[in-house]
Amino acid sequence: MKPSIPKGTRDFSPLEMQRRNFIFNTIRSVYEKFGYEQIETPTMENLDTLMGKYGEEGDKLIFKILNSGNFLEGIDKNQIEEGNFKKITSSISEKALRYDLTVPFARYVVMHQNDITFPFKRYQIQPVWRADRPQKGRYREFYQCDADVIGSAALLNEVELIQIIDEVFSNLTIGVIIKINNRKILSGIAEIIGEADKIIDITVAIDKLDKIGIEKVNEELKSKGLSANAIQQIQPLMNLKGSNEEKLSSLEKILSTSEIGKKGIEETKSVLNSISLFPNPSSQLELDITLARGLNYYTGAIIEVKVEDKRSSFTSSVLGGGRYDDLTGIFGLPNVSGVGISFGVDRIYDVMDEMKLFEQMNLQSSSTKILFVNFGSAEEKYCLQLVTKVRAAGINAELYPDQAKMKKQMSYADAKKIPFVAIIGSDEMKEQKIMLKNMVRGEQVKVSLEELIEKIKD
Amino acid sequence: MKPSIPKGTRDFSPLEMQRRNFIFNTIRSVYEKFGYEQIETPTMENLDTLMGKYGEEGDKLIFKILNSGNFLEGIDKNQIEEGNFKKITSSISEKALRYDLTVPFARYVVMHQNDITFPFKRYQIQPVWRADRPQKGRYREFYQCDADVIGSAALLNEVELIQIIDEVFSNLTIGVIIKINNRKILSGIAEIIGEADKIIDITVAIDKLDKIGIEKVNEELKSKGLSANAIQQIQPLMNLKGSNEEKLSSLEKILSTSEIGKKGIEETKSVLNSISLFPNPSSQLELDITLARGLNYYTGAIIEVKVEDKRSSFTSSVLGGGRYDDLTGIFGLPNVSGVGISFGVDRIYDVMDEMKLFEQMNLQSSSTKILFVNFGSAEEKYCLQLVTKVRAAGINAELYPDQAKMKKQMSYADAKKIPFVAIIGSDEMKEQKIMLKNMVRGEQVKVSLEELIEKIKD
Repeated sequence: MKPSIPKGTRDFSPLEMQRRNFIFNTIRSVYEKFGYEQIETPTMENLDTLMGKYGEEGDKLIFKILNSGNFLEGIDKNQIEEGNFKKITSSISEKALRYDLTVPFARYVVMHQNDITFPFKRYQIQPVWRADRPQKGRYREFYQCDADVIGSAALLNEVELIQIIDEVFSNLTIGVIIKINNRKILSGIAEIIGEADKIIDITVAIDKLDKIGIEKVNEELKSKGLSANAIQQIQPLMNLKGSNEEKLSSLEKILSTSEIGKKGIEETKSVLNSISLFPNPSSQLELDITLARGLNYYTGAIIEVKVEDKRSSFTSSVLGGGRYDDLTGIFGLPNVSGVGISFGVDRIYDVMDEMKLFEQMNLQSSSTKILFVNFGSAEEKYCLQLVTKVRAAGINAELYPDQAKMKKQMSYADAKKIPFVAIIGSDEMKEQKIMLKNMVRGEQVKVSLEELIEKIKD
Repeated sequence: MKPSIPKGTRDFSPLEMQRRNFIFNTIRSVYEKFGYEQIETPTMENLDTLMGKYGEEGDKLIFKILNSGNFLEGIDKNQIEEGNFKKITSSISEKALRYDLTVPFARYVVMHQNDITFPFKRYQIQPVWRADRPQKGRYREFYQCDADVIGSAALLNEVELIQIIDEVFSNLTIGVIIKINNRKILSGIAEIIGEADKIIDITVAIDKLDKIGIEKVNEELKSKGLSANAIQQIQPLMNLKGSNEEKLSSLEKILSTSEIGKKGIEETKSVLNSISLFPNPSSQLELDITLARGLNYYTGAIIEVKVEDKRSSFTSSVLGGGRYDDLTGIFGLPNVSGVGISFGVDRIYDVMDEMKLFEQMNLQSSSTKILFVNFGSAEEKYCLQLVTKVRAAGINAELYPDQAKMKKQMSYADAKKIPFVAIIGSDEMKEQKIMLKNMVRGEQVKVSLEELIEKIKD
């Protein structure tokens, strides 16, 4: 039997784990710097908590858990005869794997509303599962890193989330462009062209501008039944140019008769003004009114981050987010406003890998600083005491467990990229000294234990 | 709809997460101090990777994933008519949730054997799932924290694992007793009483000595067909008293005619001798020849840790481990010796909770050090710049997002146990000063930004 793992899933090697942990810890520490607190929710949710929350397509992509024991008991055999697998699913499965972190978070807030102090700033770093067709860069098990504030309508939250995004990508040393938009601006546009009921069609179409170009967008708008006049009115919006301020002042003119449009402009202005207080945002911040992701869901700000770095061939999205006014309504707690972001860690990993950032950061598979070579029982006993003292000084250290050939032990240090090796034979034992080899420079020097600890700590 | 979660699963609040992370990070940093490297394996394994590895009872407790799409396609309807749910399971499910970390690790080693440098010291901290009946302290989703060395038969590994155990519980400030035994001593016992083939029955029975007492153990031995003579011979073994050295010297006499028994004694002596080199092991280390956990699996050392702390009512096991000589054989890589341990984090949490250790360590839900009160738009704008500077100094800080009543903002700081609050009204803005309130002592003092950063950093 040749072992394998399910398609779309991955093992992570020590080297990959070091690198992934670096990304997770970077995001985590920035979240905590802004006062976000971590929660975790169970891997399995009740099936009815998840079903119907991600659209019909989403329902199909949810991994369902077979009931334990005799799951056939009490099921309607006629349905099996009919091959009605959807109906049978709910009879033989009552649990499913988490599909995202947002719905479980909404469920959490409603269940624990009496224990939570609002505004609740929570972050959550956990895997999710989707029965998608696996392909390059898309997996059936992947991590999400979400932060949301719930119970506060203040725009300060949007400002701080943008600060968080900027700080994370700056710490990861990835150049990005942060795109923002506002659902209310989109609503305003639909309103002034007299097609308020077609807002979804309009935004779905203009969201594709980058990919398919203006002519194809116009064709799509026409096919959705927009009048030639309406399409004409949208043209200047798709061609908005200049600085964020210039775009906003154009929009102010165009949307001057739409209350909701003006509200969207005002919100966006306020966020941009606050951000401009900070002299050195490392990322670009761009108002992009063609940005419409997750529209059905977002009610205010919409945020997306794309890599914009000469060293990278990636242009895809590495973060999404926005404000939603009724996340918890589905579970019986209406009118609680929230805003949040979600880092796409797997894509960030691929970007950093391509740009060789992990190598530059010297992230190795092991954090071991020194390997003590094992020459035999007497030396082992002696080294065991030394290595214990080195560890007590806070240094990650290993004593090779077997009395193997020197070459094998050195290969082990090489493979784990351990920077120092301590070589102690009978001479060194007599002198109470250690031959310390610097594996990077190849130098050897005889030192006392105290000197060794001093040298390695640097 | 009132939201709920599946029985036996848990949400973890920010406070619980801080405390759990403290335990995980303590274990992780000790593992890394000894050169163990982290890996992760997928939540889902192929069903046939897991089935048959945990006994018949284990197979039932594995959570199976329903195949995506029309899982009824191609299944034998006669089996449904017969109600043969076991056979149908393998037709409608090909994936399952990880049941422990050991089998996936064995699968990992075999799959990646060409990329691994042996001896491979890996650790793994991930949840596992079991369809057990939930009860107090037993969950359907819980974390395991395993470390194993694979590809080294050296007893130094056992020594270092005991050092790891000692250091972890010492850092967690929990008093424990580390019990060790050796499968070869148990084999020796079965051999010298002439019941080598009954070793399982014998060890299962004497493993219960603590719980049911010597008379019941003897009854069980009799019921399993042991001769009166054999039972007689076991009695002194169950009454072994004194120091580890005294027990070993008694065993040496009793097992003098058993080769395997003598080997077990020699191994145990070697481990205990090495450990005795260290002047201050914080935990007790006790040879307990009634310890037999996981016998079918272990081939050398057997390790178990029990809480032994006046402040705790728990006496249950918080760690298990041992040496196995053929873990990867099931996946086609025979004769690779390994040894490992597994911390029971959920139980450790309960023990620390009972002993109020988390309170003593001052582990709060939030790591926020200071909250800036929000009095209005002008103050907010001003404070946003200050809080950004405080964060740039590496301090976790919040600005209350809404212009809410002072009382509400102070309650927020209270609930999150934030130790400092910065109060900045128009006076403070004019003076370029900050009213800094120490929430623990109740004192207030007017300071500059630099002084504030200095004060909080302590």
